[in-house]
Amino acid sequence: MQRYKCIISYDGSGFSGYQIQPKKRTVQSDIEAVLTKMHKDKRVLVSGSGRTDAGVHAKGQVIHFDSPLPIPENKWVVALNSMLPEDITVLSIEKVSPSFHARFDAIGKEYRYFLHLSATRDPFRRNFAYQYPYPLNIDAMREASRYLFGTHDFSSFCSAKTEVEDKVRTIEKIDLTMEGELLLFRFVGNGFLYNMVRILVGTLLEVGTGAREPKEILDILEKKDRRYAGKTAPANGLYLWKVFYN
Amino acid sequence: MQRYKCIISYDGSGFSGYQIQPKKRTVQSDIEAVLTKMHKDKRVLVSGSGRTDAGVHAKGQVIHFDSPLPIPENKWVVALNSMLPEDITVLSIEKVSPSFHARFDAIGKEYRYFLHLSATRDPFRRNFAYQYPYPLNIDAMREASRYLFGTHDFSSFCSAKTEVEDKVRTIEKIDLTMEGELLLFRFVGNGFLYNMVRILVGTLLEVGTGAREPKEILDILEKKDRRYAGKTAPANGLYLWKVFYN
Repeated sequence: MQRYKCIISYDGSGFSGYQIQPKKRTVQSDIEAVLTKMHKDKRVLVSGSGRTDAGVHAKGQVIHFDSPLPIPENKWVVALNSMLPEDITVLSIEKVSPSFHARFDAIGKEYRYFLHLSATRDPFRRNFAYQYPYPLNIDAMREASRYLFGTHDFSSFCSAKTEVEDKVRTIEKIDLTMEGELLLFRFVGNGFLYNMVRILVGTLLEVGTGAREPKEILDILEKKDRRYAGKTAPANGLYLWKVFYN
Repeated sequence: MQRYKCIISYDGSGFSGYQIQPKKRTVQSDIEAVLTKMHKDKRVLVSGSGRTDAGVHAKGQVIHFDSPLPIPENKWVVALNSMLPEDITVLSIEKVSPSFHARFDAIGKEYRYFLHLSATRDPFRRNFAYQYPYPLNIDAMREASRYLFGTHDFSSFCSAKTEVEDKVRTIEKIDLTMEGELLLFRFVGNGFLYNMVRILVGTLLEVGTGAREPKEILDILEKKDRRYAGKTAPANGLYLWKVFYN
């Protein structure tokens, strides 16, 4: 039996998220179906670095699975891609030690969020960026983002539905850059809570419109209560960009 | 009654082409449905500058229609976009004389074709560029494209299904440029036959792989027979980019 680490990319538009759910099309179930077929209907389990929600994309999600098949690494990529649907692609696959775990060994993640700043909607971007038609004060958003940098209890920026107890996380990098009509948010951290990036973006947007002062971020963090933060930004702008391992 | 000229953009992935067909989802039928609803179920006919096939996109398709509704031009854009599905967007609308005709008054068109030159498929580009994994001699393709420039009988580059008799067209501009992993073809001409751009691209690809010499373009033009040209390139890389009027 050999364990494999596999980096995948997917367009989340057509999936009810990453994680397997009964009667729903999910990334995990599509990959398990292909692997199970390759193993003569012996079920192969796939573990991901974490979930992504319905409509959320991945440029570098990491999964692992075990297989006894004597297939070289490069042939694995070709075999999987020939059987997977077109909205999932395997980017790379490598043999790892049996102790490797996509989720427990992850030491950090990068998420990106794309806003399309335009009064006119673009049919080619509708699934891939959140169209935002109102003016934004990006300097104020950058100022606010500096209060998020570092180690904090992010309870206020976490869906109330979460079951995780420890909500202290460290944001190691957070920046906002304009690329044409796109405003790109980059978040690198040691871990992110459920909906955390989308709530961070939603709150920064409220700073950008002037509805909140940049400094309010400090109060929101202190409250440790989801109700004080902004709205959850839509899923279509969010990408799990990279997962970091030692 | 006022005639309106309207520039629209659409992601062709979800449509069975531009032109209305029974029991199929088409761009024309979606727009007519919205206009008919706005006119209290009195059917409004829409005329386009030409058809686009299933899967073909438009960045600047032009249509016209007539309406007695006293709506200012900018309000028309907002009203239509609020009712149209997300894969069609109205970019602009303007009042024109009742003699304007989107098809008969068009004096030229620009089409673009995007090739994604990569061994790895990209889930985010699958509907928007044709992924091509083999090496191409782009200089040879450029040389071949120069033989297409100008006025020719393009019978060899036209689907045998066409009913048009006169197959003489003028290509006023044809160029190939690399943008990262994308090879972009631009075609500007006074008119294009059915499938012409896709057959031109498919034939240029055969020059790029070395299967044909650039000069063979001259022989193919002379044959005036579809069977001598290359394959029809897939629809997903093609965009109706602009329609020109006086």
